[in-house]
Amino acid sequence: MTPTSTPSLDEVAALSCAPPGARRRADRAHTIAEILRRQVVQGAFRNGVLPDEQTLADEYAASRNAVRQALDALRAEGLVDRVPGTGTLVTAEKYAHGLNRLTGLAETLHEHGPVTNEVRAAGTVRAPAAVARRLGLPAGSDIVYVERLRLVGGLPLSLDLTYLAPDIGAPLLGEDLVNNDLFALIERSTGRSLGVAELTVEAVSADRHTAAVLQAPPGAALLAVERLSHLDGGRPVDLEFIRFRGDRLTMTARINRG
Amino acid sequence: MTPTSTPSLDEVAALSCAPPGARRRADRAHTIAEILRRQVVQGAFRNGVLPDEQTLADEYAASRNAVRQALDALRAEGLVDRVPGTGTLVTAEKYAHGLNRLTGLAETLHEHGPVTNEVRAAGTVRAPAAVARRLGLPAGSDIVYVERLRLVGGLPLSLDLTYLAPDIGAPLLGEDLVNNDLFALIERSTGRSLGVAELTVEAVSADRHTAAVLQAPPGAALLAVERLSHLDGGRPVDLEFIRFRGDRLTMTARINRG
Repeated sequence: MTPTSTPSLDEVAALSCAPPGARRRADRAHTIAEILRRQVVQGAFRNGVLPDEQTLADEYAASRNAVRQALDALRAEGLVDRVPGTGTLVTAEKYAHGLNRLTGLAETLHEHGPVTNEVRAAGTVRAPAAVARRLGLPAGSDIVYVERLRLVGGLPLSLDLTYLAPDIGAPLLGEDLVNNDLFALIERSTGRSLGVAELTVEAVSADRHTAAVLQAPPGAALLAVERLSHLDGGRPVDLEFIRFRGDRLTMTARINRG
Repeated sequence: MTPTSTPSLDEVAALSCAPPGARRRADRAHTIAEILRRQVVQGAFRNGVLPDEQTLADEYAASRNAVRQALDALRAEGLVDRVPGTGTLVTAEKYAHGLNRLTGLAETLHEHGPVTNEVRAAGTVRAPAAVARRLGLPAGSDIVYVERLRLVGGLPLSLDLTYLAPDIGAPLLGEDLVNNDLFALIERSTGRSLGVAELTVEAVSADRHTAAVLQAPPGAALLAVERLSHLDGGRPVDLEFIRFRGDRLTMTARINRG
């Protein structure tokens, strides 16, 4: 089959179980937008300028209207902006956080600028039962609570609520929580390495409060992460509830079928 | 330290670098909501009924107003609903999709009900350059494109755009794409196992088109996944762009510090 005999993405519905003509422009625009947005997020357009509409229309064998609608979707997401006389420019920078190794934020993102923490609360409290259970503590135990707004290059990235086993957390309350990852402080303080962490990742809409703290619009998409970290070979010591701004973070993983 | 001498989550700001009184009710409500929502999502309330407000206020050493605000946040997210005379009931069911092993949706969720696919497009097209590169194909190659709306128990879960290497994808176009994972079809057709996949996970807001397809409100939080799957020990064959409804899916992983 030569390229000229191959249908374009515009025409593929004719080959499918969908009735011919049923593949609307919105579908074609979405198909194009999905590829373009990954290129934008991965920094594939090195000078930060996207190809012009006609070039993209040729590339995707699509109408200019479909391309324009795809670019509109990226613009609505805040990934690109259209500058008259220049073209479509990449405006977003998303950081990649790997899911294959347990790392703190400052460890992970140090090349992107300093990670600083605005400590919103820090102290010893009575553990809520659900938290005590997760950390293997008796009901009603004391626990150390640390709430931080985490900033990269001065801009909010995440709101982290952290519960630490009391013997692990108490010595950290006198440490520099503004400029250090808790992981680094735990390992320095205990002389032990962290081991396994279990985490869950969800996409949620920002409630008004969280949006305000993260300086994001209400309803903005956030990555909500719950992470329970254990000492190496040992007990759970650090339970975190994290909300990352979806427009600033990508998680990456390499997984096996076997 | 006895429980009575330990400050509550309401009072912890006094111990922190925040000025006393700066920890507002919205902060306390968020702290409570984060714990409760994990319990809801993990199915911790087995009969589906949350404790009453006074019990929660005691549990979190918080005011009833803070508890009410936390429950309002869960309700706004669609996780619970308040039923007069009965209390606060869990209304959401989220499926867990593991990130530690590469699995198809039907393999993963089979106990939750049948996974079916509405095939929106399927056929051979000319590969966009960015897609050809990711799959290691020459520019302008033919490629197989499959677009599916995936449903669990008859409700939309994800919209998947899939590009398959032509020799892998072409034999699948005659197969039952409605009732099978592509992974299973690829392995059956090639007689080989899949191997490694690289994936990225992001939180994004649903554009109007995707929202309509997924039967979610415009702007709803979605998990956007890009996944490139390789044959065992071999070449990349399957590139997917997936949008999961955030209110229906949780991703889980176990990661190591080492």
